[in-house]
Amino acid sequence: MRLPHRAEALPPSRKGAKAGRVAVLSTGTELLRGRSTDTNLASIARALEPIGLEVSHHATAPDDLDRLVEEIRLASARAGIVILTGGLGPTEDDFTRRAAAESFGRPLVFRPAAWNAIRSRFRRFRIPMAAINRRQAFLPRGARILPNPNGSAPGFAVEAAGRFFFALPGPPREMIPMLRKLVVPRLAAAIPGGPRFRLWESKVVGMPEGNVDEIVRPIVARRRGASYGLTVSAGTVNITIRVERGSPLPMARELRRKLGRFLLGPKSLEETVGELLLRKRRTIALAESCTGGLISHRLTNVAGISAALLETVVCYSNRSKVSRLGVPALTIRRHGAVSAEVAAAMAEGAARTAGADIGAAVTGIAGPSGGSKKKPVGLVWHAVHYRGRTRAERRVFPGDRTAIKERAANFALDLVRRALSE
Amino acid sequence: MRLPHRAEALPPSRKGAKAGRVAVLSTGTELLRGRSTDTNLASIARALEPIGLEVSHHATAPDDLDRLVEEIRLASARAGIVILTGGLGPTEDDFTRRAAAESFGRPLVFRPAAWNAIRSRFRRFRIPMAAINRRQAFLPRGARILPNPNGSAPGFAVEAAGRFFFALPGPPREMIPMLRKLVVPRLAAAIPGGPRFRLWESKVVGMPEGNVDEIVRPIVARRRGASYGLTVSAGTVNITIRVERGSPLPMARELRRKLGRFLLGPKSLEETVGELLLRKRRTIALAESCTGGLISHRLTNVAGISAALLETVVCYSNRSKVSRLGVPALTIRRHGAVSAEVAAAMAEGAARTAGADIGAAVTGIAGPSGGSKKKPVGLVWHAVHYRGRTRAERRVFPGDRTAIKERAANFALDLVRRALSE
Repeated sequence: MRLPHRAEALPPSRKGAKAGRVAVLSTGTELLRGRSTDTNLASIARALEPIGLEVSHHATAPDDLDRLVEEIRLASARAGIVILTGGLGPTEDDFTRRAAAESFGRPLVFRPAAWNAIRSRFRRFRIPMAAINRRQAFLPRGARILPNPNGSAPGFAVEAAGRFFFALPGPPREMIPMLRKLVVPRLAAAIPGGPRFRLWESKVVGMPEGNVDEIVRPIVARRRGASYGLTVSAGTVNITIRVERGSPLPMARELRRKLGRFLLGPKSLEETVGELLLRKRRTIALAESCTGGLISHRLTNVAGISAALLETVVCYSNRSKVSRLGVPALTIRRHGAVSAEVAAAMAEGAARTAGADIGAAVTGIAGPSGGSKKKPVGLVWHAVHYRGRTRAERRVFPGDRTAIKERAANFALDLVRRALSE
Repeated sequence: MRLPHRAEALPPSRKGAKAGRVAVLSTGTELLRGRSTDTNLASIARALEPIGLEVSHHATAPDDLDRLVEEIRLASARAGIVILTGGLGPTEDDFTRRAAAESFGRPLVFRPAAWNAIRSRFRRFRIPMAAINRRQAFLPRGARILPNPNGSAPGFAVEAAGRFFFALPGPPREMIPMLRKLVVPRLAAAIPGGPRFRLWESKVVGMPEGNVDEIVRPIVARRRGASYGLTVSAGTVNITIRVERGSPLPMARELRRKLGRFLLGPKSLEETVGELLLRKRRTIALAESCTGGLISHRLTNVAGISAALLETVVCYSNRSKVSRLGVPALTIRRHGAVSAEVAAAMAEGAARTAGADIGAAVTGIAGPSGGSKKKPVGLVWHAVHYRGRTRAERRVFPGDRTAIKERAANFALDLVRRALSE
């Protein structure tokens, strides 16, 4: 299984600006066919940030030996550090090992240490091993093995002439621990100088992007060597400010003054709400209708939340709203299931029946059917009950079923955040 | 605001193989910084598939005029069709309009039609408009305006010398409808020949990738012009088989015979379960502990599911398991909250209290804390109650809190699928 290799090796790394640049290559025909979505670029970018490295190039390559070699060469011409993910599996279309060997002009050699690690993993989990897994133990000559504690595919690193090449597995669950433990420390030690910039980051809830931009732009423009970027996701605007030297904090203070309660902080809404609940030792119960459990799912992504979240009732049926939460049947008949009155009764009922300090509720029409002229698809009532007071707010969200669920969940979480912050 | 432009235009398109190739460019420094994740590549790939076009190149470009021009030129050298997403917003770092103008050697000109559409959108939603939104009405001369019904940024298309360039907004909610309505029909009409290949796709649940590969490989290898790819996500393996001519169905039949109940079909688990419930007119109630509402959230992404899903109780506390679902307190004391007995009692209680045909339940330890030697983090009990029978299954899942939630949700949905398929 030793493979022939092409003669020409990569040219040696140029010194200077490009040496500290990072190129990321995602491999997989299935990515180009839309069968899966790449999240590794984002994980790599965030992991390199604290050591002052920024990703300047990214490309997605198919499972094709020649194309993969072409992309590795292009990436190596553009950056001194190349991090490649994917294509390390046992199957015939996993070309990363061969492509790296060809790009560096080195043969593939069998590595007993890698093979032993693969075999012992299969034994430990008592999984029957397919014979082709042996392929995964062939690596370019001189490569350092990067052990993979969460999967069968070992990664590898090739360092030559001031260049760094890392091949990591595609599944994030395997890739991320290896990135943090093996790649980041190596680069931190090898690339001198440390952080060359500082970032400040915060989310804004409840304000359109253009208006956020009108507030951020003049503040950043006054500061030399500062730049910023905005991204939008389900009604939340994310601000990232970057300064070449000094601290971004004076700008952050000014933004906090101008954006007030719209400024969330760097964490996600659910983390922010979860931490507020735990810090203030308040308990919460949720009543979800059109969001279908999404608020509860997001809040339970926060570790330790079981001390605050007592229970959630997803009351999709009217019967459930009455029997589980004590919403009066008459209120539903009179005002309809999507109304301020029912949302308020759901929030109060959730808190009362669970014995929680806070009750939060959502009822709306996520579509695609069920809308009317008076109550269109996207109409959502949100309510929060806390300290004897109930507040209900109405919104009409654009988008499809998934988008409406997401926006309603965001709005409800923000209502809880504001109630807890008062 | 008319901008200077460089003299050299793009070289005319080469005829032949490259004309039908598609390159996708995702723009945004925030993508390279890991502040957001690109899903547009996948959406574009899937939308082009029915008209026989495949994405052969993909790159991510920062918000930098020169780099964006470089990437547009590189993409245009590699493919006759370039689809770019992002960078059409109103802010200073939205460079797509300028970069396209420079790449095609055309000036930016003010387009009153685009400007009117932007203004009327802001009026309709009664959003105060920031002055900078006027930038969005400057497009390369000769470009066709692509109206954006879901956002303020119009897209545009430039067609010249057999080349196709499309610029679409970054937010998927805006991009996808424009892609389907304006880009796909245009390319279908312009690129002759129609589909040049056929794909067959299915998911496999409950079998490791290497074993799936050993079954798929020989079946595909026997067929000329056939290839396949596997992707893995949270314990589900996705198979895509591609044939150059003829039908992939004989191979699909063989796979169905060999994979049996492990073969799911092309749809997601929640769609499969949702459709089974609706077709068989069965109602369901869920009881979730460690999955926190994720199963309910996923099932309620299926349109029309309100006819089948009566309610979900996320019973994070023991009290909730007892009071909401009637789990005997003694059973919890004797066997612990994470046990076959409690999972079964939760499933039975969910069905009984909701008056549903099926009850499904999950109880486990999602971590990071709460594990012990006997009951480690990742231990999950799943149960389904249907037709008077209750079945409980135990699994220990690897990964972090999010991964454990996802795998447990998949396993529980698959249990329901299997119960409904018997």
